[in-house]
Amino acid sequence: MYNPVEIIIKKRAGQELSESEINFMVGGYVQGKIPDYQMSSFLMAIFFRGMNDAETFLLTKSYIDSGKKLEFAENTVDKHSTGGVGDKVSIVLAPIVAACGGKIPMLGGRGLGHTGGTLDKLESIPNLRTDLDEAQFRKTIAACGFSIASQTQDMVPADKKIYALRDVSGTVESLPLITASIMSKKIAEGAKNLVIDLKVGSGAFMKNIEDARKLGRNLKKVGETFGQKVKIVYTDMNNPIGTHIGNGLEIKECVEYLQGASYPDLHEITKTLATQMLLLCDLAKDEHDAQQKIQKAIKSGKALEHLRQFIKLQNGNEKVADEPNLLPQAKIQVPILATKSGYIHAIDSQAIGYALIELKAGRQKLTDLLDYGTGAKFTAKIGDEVSKNQELGAVYCQNQNDGKIVAEKIAKSLQIQTDKTAKRQLILAVE
Amino acid sequence: MYNPVEIIIKKRAGQELSESEINFMVGGYVQGKIPDYQMSSFLMAIFFRGMNDAETFLLTKSYIDSGKKLEFAENTVDKHSTGGVGDKVSIVLAPIVAACGGKIPMLGGRGLGHTGGTLDKLESIPNLRTDLDEAQFRKTIAACGFSIASQTQDMVPADKKIYALRDVSGTVESLPLITASIMSKKIAEGAKNLVIDLKVGSGAFMKNIEDARKLGRNLKKVGETFGQKVKIVYTDMNNPIGTHIGNGLEIKECVEYLQGASYPDLHEITKTLATQMLLLCDLAKDEHDAQQKIQKAIKSGKALEHLRQFIKLQNGNEKVADEPNLLPQAKIQVPILATKSGYIHAIDSQAIGYALIELKAGRQKLTDLLDYGTGAKFTAKIGDEVSKNQELGAVYCQNQNDGKIVAEKIAKSLQIQTDKTAKRQLILAVE
Repeated sequence: MYNPVEIIIKKRAGQELSESEINFMVGGYVQGKIPDYQMSSFLMAIFFRGMNDAETFLLTKSYIDSGKKLEFAENTVDKHSTGGVGDKVSIVLAPIVAACGGKIPMLGGRGLGHTGGTLDKLESIPNLRTDLDEAQFRKTIAACGFSIASQTQDMVPADKKIYALRDVSGTVESLPLITASIMSKKIAEGAKNLVIDLKVGSGAFMKNIEDARKLGRNLKKVGETFGQKVKIVYTDMNNPIGTHIGNGLEIKECVEYLQGASYPDLHEITKTLATQMLLLCDLAKDEHDAQQKIQKAIKSGKALEHLRQFIKLQNGNEKVADEPNLLPQAKIQVPILATKSGYIHAIDSQAIGYALIELKAGRQKLTDLLDYGTGAKFTAKIGDEVSKNQELGAVYCQNQNDGKIVAEKIAKSLQIQTDKTAKRQLILAVE
Repeated sequence: MYNPVEIIIKKRAGQELSESEINFMVGGYVQGKIPDYQMSSFLMAIFFRGMNDAETFLLTKSYIDSGKKLEFAENTVDKHSTGGVGDKVSIVLAPIVAACGGKIPMLGGRGLGHTGGTLDKLESIPNLRTDLDEAQFRKTIAACGFSIASQTQDMVPADKKIYALRDVSGTVESLPLITASIMSKKIAEGAKNLVIDLKVGSGAFMKNIEDARKLGRNLKKVGETFGQKVKIVYTDMNNPIGTHIGNGLEIKECVEYLQGASYPDLHEITKTLATQMLLLCDLAKDEHDAQQKIQKAIKSGKALEHLRQFIKLQNGNEKVADEPNLLPQAKIQVPILATKSGYIHAIDSQAIGYALIELKAGRQKLTDLLDYGTGAKFTAKIGDEVSKNQELGAVYCQNQNDGKIVAEKIAKSLQIQTDKTAKRQLILAVE
């Protein structure tokens, strides 16, 4: 038996931990034998000293081994995003890939702070449920090619407990801890192939491509050690994603997109990620073939049909797939007006995300209740030329005054200058 | 109001904390508003990032301000030792300095791990009490020039709570945390002058003089910022101190020393520390004068008389000052035999300290009960020539078998080689 203090001091000194030492700490913490205060100083020591590839793999393994692991007979594939404002990609990506023959066992998350969560967005669809048991999860995948559900209590409990502690102990921003958290869930859910949408930019945890590549390399290495095929797609996170932010509004954008409406940046990112997913599990012979299949899945209405089935299978009102106006939408709209004339040089997506929390489109604490109808339509992108008081979108709110305050905050989150600036390239690299 | 996570992250990033941020963390922790798991990751961030002089002073101040502070009209002086095996110096030093006119308000500690504690040693004297209230503490000092007592509950509670957390969270070995812990107690007790016996060597926290000087410089700086006069005496901690280890046995050594018996290294260290104490509070005009006064205090029996008075004032059986055999002493003695012939190159004092825990001469946990009669007489020093099976001392125990095991462990803690080696210089520097 180990003494936890000795293991903390070993990591503190920058020494490599063994499998049994890592298992002792993680397993002991999950079982309540190691108290929070030892785990948090251990996490801070990991923050400073890092972990090598072997340790990061073992840490991830200890997370997975703390709970139940799903196995699928099929050649499953999934996507993970490191999170961005307005990121509704999973909700169109999964039906498209399913329409092309993919099997996607997707366990999603809740929104916290400035970023939203796929589960919250889906739950804006009347009656839709995401708290499935394993049988329901498997049945949905078998029937429509994908399911998006919440992790059950018995899956990767180590990550749940450690993530909550990292959040309150100042130890979130650690490469090995981020890696273990992401990969443990994506391996425990049974994904044999994985595409990671790694966000880079002012609105993301990774501010530059060099840091992002370090994380990407770590994620890929761990996945591959578990026998997973992994592709990393680095995408720009200096603009919000798509044109709508807010739960019901984002589902509306998704439905309209699958109905054939033009949403250029949602399309670009979805197409890139779907291409990699199809290639990973041999559902397309090359990029060109993949893109044709994706195009066909959308144009034929097949992807929309998969979404409709999915909604129905998870108890939701599938009519929203035909009539997106059935989705909750706050009645009052307050325009977002450009504060001056010029070119947009920067958009503070985090500030937009935080501003929308005031309308309950997002949450500060996990126990906060959401208003599915609030949010913002926001079409401006970096590089756009705007004139003073031009409408850049609108805040959807239940109360004119609150909406006005939020609309002004969003307007202020834009940095407008008189000199021209280039539009951002959305896809930075695929590795 | 601050968010503790933001302060943790600020220190984690290596930024300087303000007075109100430090007070928020320390005060909040003492009041139970900041949980252990935030304090322990904060302490680990301090371990890695350190604190500058201003922060270290403010941290110390926040510790002191968490409780009651004593004030004395007299020009008080005290000594602090960073701890060593067999360190009974306070018990002879205080009566000697008191006999020379010093006023010493000494708050002592308990033993834990390989080092003993002055309070435990004193409590081996039948009926002696160290849990005094402030009035009793002041009365004892007024009557015999010194008192050695335990900190009351209302003094520096921040240090008590944070020290306990450091011990179990792997955050003990941090310069600013050690500094705040030592200095807060020595300032709160009301010592206007302070001599610090900073141990250096294999048996001490500071393994070399360079690291020791960093700590010494920190301690002095903080004391002086509080208006204290501080001297640092760097002493060698590669040999155990004196010839006895164990609570009752160490008191016996102290009494015999004050009765005039020859204990060369206890004398050298005591004389050096007492000299600095007398000089700091102007009770001697120079080193020579101080040493004459010290010699006289011992030879005249005045120092022993002060010890006798002190024991009586704190409810102990003062007869031990005349008959040290009244002290508890385990009946069975097992000889410690040299494992081979040659010169002693190293002595692992920590190993000796830990071995003696098995006889309850020390404790592993603060709740462990002590046996005041057990311990060891151990006269060997580095540089001594020994022959195989030569008696180097004896283990005092209640049970022959246990004693034999411990005697063998102590014998093995010596590194004996055929080549000659120099004796250690005890006093390394006074600054």
